[in-house]
Amino acid sequence: MQVELVRVDDAFHFQASGSSEASVSIDASEAVGGHNAGVRPMELLLMGLGGCTAIDVILVLKKQRLQIEDFRVSVSGEREKIEGTEMSPFRKINLHYQIKGNVPQEKAERAIQLSMEKYCSATAQLSPTAEITHTLTIEGVSPQEIQADSLAQ
Amino acid sequence: MQVELVRVDDAFHFQASGSSEASVSIDASEAVGGHNAGVRPMELLLMGLGGCTAIDVILVLKKQRLQIEDFRVSVSGEREKIEGTEMSPFRKINLHYQIKGNVPQEKAERAIQLSMEKYCSATAQLSPTAEITHTLTIEGVSPQEIQADSLAQ
Repeated sequence: MQVELVRVDDAFHFQASGSSEASVSIDASEAVGGHNAGVRPMELLLMGLGGCTAIDVILVLKKQRLQIEDFRVSVSGEREKIEGTEMSPFRKINLHYQIKGNVPQEKAERAIQLSMEKYCSATAQLSPTAEITHTLTIEGVSPQEIQADSLAQ
Repeated sequence: MQVELVRVDDAFHFQASGSSEASVSIDASEAVGGHNAGVRPMELLLMGLGGCTAIDVILVLKKQRLQIEDFRVSVSGEREKIEGTEMSPFRKINLHYQIKGNVPQEKAERAIQLSMEKYCSATAQLSPTAEITHTLTIEGVSPQEIQADSLAQ
């Protein structure tokens, strides 16, 4: 797997690309001389983790033919400075899954567990250096909403 | 630090955002039912590492008033499956820095070393699970190019 980063201004703004057409803007904050024109590099680690597990969970729930209306993940990371350096990696990361749909709580919990323990490569990458926890809220949909949805399709 | 991922289709396409206005498209490959409309989650880990160290290196070289015309980083990761799971985290990552400018090799090497050992939080996050190496190429600029550049500014 390979990605390319190309600097696009005279400071810290980079465009990054990988195997898809999509590109990612990366930039430093104004505090260090950047223009805030892209995401922070450390935010990308949280986004990678969130995207990885979100795809797993949706895959598992889809296999069970469960209806998902909306799916959001908030990923928050607590950083801790390593003494004698300027490095502050994440030491705690929480994934907050917010699912809207016809999904029983225990099936969502099981899907998350499978992602954390069996499927998600980003979890395997990050869990040795950061404790990863999760929370979950499910907002059900009424039978009327489901029917209206089916009719609209 | 917190990021939000919001699903934007009925499959695996997410828009992720953090502290800047920029958003990141994340999607799965067509092989698993995605639409390839965004970067892969594991690519984001490589982009985060590349962006983190690129910003460090530029900061160090800028402090020494060295002129950088172009700066690129290719990040390649070798993944290895964890037996009994579907997880395949990176076990080797190489950062290939390509700098164009009036930058002596030893100063660039020293800047990279400082990033790896003292500044880059993503390195601290990932180096316990992946061996991180680097390569470097520098393309010099002629005095004429520098002068033309100064005049153009």
